[in-house]
Amino acid sequence: MATKKPLILVVNDDGITAPGIKVLLEEMQHLGEVVVVAPDGPQSGMGHAITIGKPLRLDAVDIYPKVEMYKCSGTPVDCVKLAVNKVFKGRKPDLCVSGINHGLNNSINVLYSGTMSAAVEGAIEGIPSIGFSLDDFSYDANFEYCRPYVRGIAAQVLKNDLPKHSLLNVNFPNVEKLKGIKICRQAGGRWVEEFEERVDPHQREYFWLTGKFQLEDRGEDTDVFALNNGYVSVVPTQFDMTAHHVIPELNSWSFDIPKS
Amino acid sequence: MATKKPLILVVNDDGITAPGIKVLLEEMQHLGEVVVVAPDGPQSGMGHAITIGKPLRLDAVDIYPKVEMYKCSGTPVDCVKLAVNKVFKGRKPDLCVSGINHGLNNSINVLYSGTMSAAVEGAIEGIPSIGFSLDDFSYDANFEYCRPYVRGIAAQVLKNDLPKHSLLNVNFPNVEKLKGIKICRQAGGRWVEEFEERVDPHQREYFWLTGKFQLEDRGEDTDVFALNNGYVSVVPTQFDMTAHHVIPELNSWSFDIPKS
Repeated sequence: MATKKPLILVVNDDGITAPGIKVLLEEMQHLGEVVVVAPDGPQSGMGHAITIGKPLRLDAVDIYPKVEMYKCSGTPVDCVKLAVNKVFKGRKPDLCVSGINHGLNNSINVLYSGTMSAAVEGAIEGIPSIGFSLDDFSYDANFEYCRPYVRGIAAQVLKNDLPKHSLLNVNFPNVEKLKGIKICRQAGGRWVEEFEERVDPHQREYFWLTGKFQLEDRGEDTDVFALNNGYVSVVPTQFDMTAHHVIPELNSWSFDIPKS
Repeated sequence: MATKKPLILVVNDDGITAPGIKVLLEEMQHLGEVVVVAPDGPQSGMGHAITIGKPLRLDAVDIYPKVEMYKCSGTPVDCVKLAVNKVFKGRKPDLCVSGINHGLNNSINVLYSGTMSAAVEGAIEGIPSIGFSLDDFSYDANFEYCRPYVRGIAAQVLKNDLPKHSLLNVNFPNVEKLKGIKICRQAGGRWVEEFEERVDPHQREYFWLTGKFQLEDRGEDTDVFALNNGYVSVVPTQFDMTAHHVIPELNSWSFDIPKS
């Protein structure tokens, strides 16, 4: 009896020609039937943005031999929505993988990341989903040593059931000798912004976002700690943003609503 | 002894000329010193997007009498970052309020919403933050009956300490007789997309995102339930996206990493 190959959606936020997505789709070809739907250009930092005020384009492209690929004019989340509704047309993928991102998406970066938001959208659609990211922003980042982990983690997700409404955020440190995998929580931290001030050729001031990540968490169970120690960090991630522990406190507040 | 008035940052995602932000800043003027930094145009559905690949503009504008206001070319989250770093320059606001959004940001919408993402960014910066939204997308939505609640809830947040790393997501049903406030959790649900297919004047196909919200949660402690029953929903919200309950399960998985 022939077993049907798993159907795997590959997406990213660095755009369809980024080297990271090539590594990801090659590894996924060992596990199943691959379909790529990715942005037609860079969409880093797009978070969970969707396109509602303008039209979206979706076009088949022929980049790598024997891979069904589509470029999309929208955000990473748009790519997942279009894949589910217009490419797969009712067939539901068995796995959604996003990346491999050029740059880390650990700690608070999960919120800003188009890569992770695409994986979150996959999970919202009920598809087991994983985001992969490497601590190297450069175009010629070396993804080679990530390959066995990418394939191994994806194979595990296909084999086991990820609990409902959860997905994985996987980050690779920029070291050649990976020590293994650590299951972690998202480290507390934030970006301390600097905004470079410049003047344009018309003498008008403009700003360019820049900044430094500031760790605000001394825990040894965090993704930042794992990465700093040479491990691949795996954070189970969810999209219920309720601060459940705060509900009892708020119920004790008295909201005096002034008469209008 | 004179008490210093609280410093209040007002932001939104519908743009600086939207009626909702006018109601919000007017109510905040009763509570403190108001500074508005808002997008120069509509930024709905921008989620937690930030602008990293192009410059940002920030310009003072004179729209309402005696209100310090700036329009920004970026996303709602950019507005908060620029406010904190370039407008307040070291002074830390006592409160960040976002909205009042034209349209609900309950349930899963918290992820797509620029209004809520601006409030989340405020909370990341350590500022007590609230997002407000009304169940009416129209330009001439009637925000009048929200006013006492907006002021009352903001006053409570200024008076009490919101627990660290949490903020409030406040939604108003579109009814004139509000029954009161319910503290809730985010309802489970998602958008079932439809994507209208059209053809442009050059005979090329394009897509337009549309869809229906599908509730997948029968709980009576959710924001959707509260709103459907005429209450103002208040969901304490956080930006730790770790699915903490999934960590033990993942620790029981064996990740067989194939030799590369």
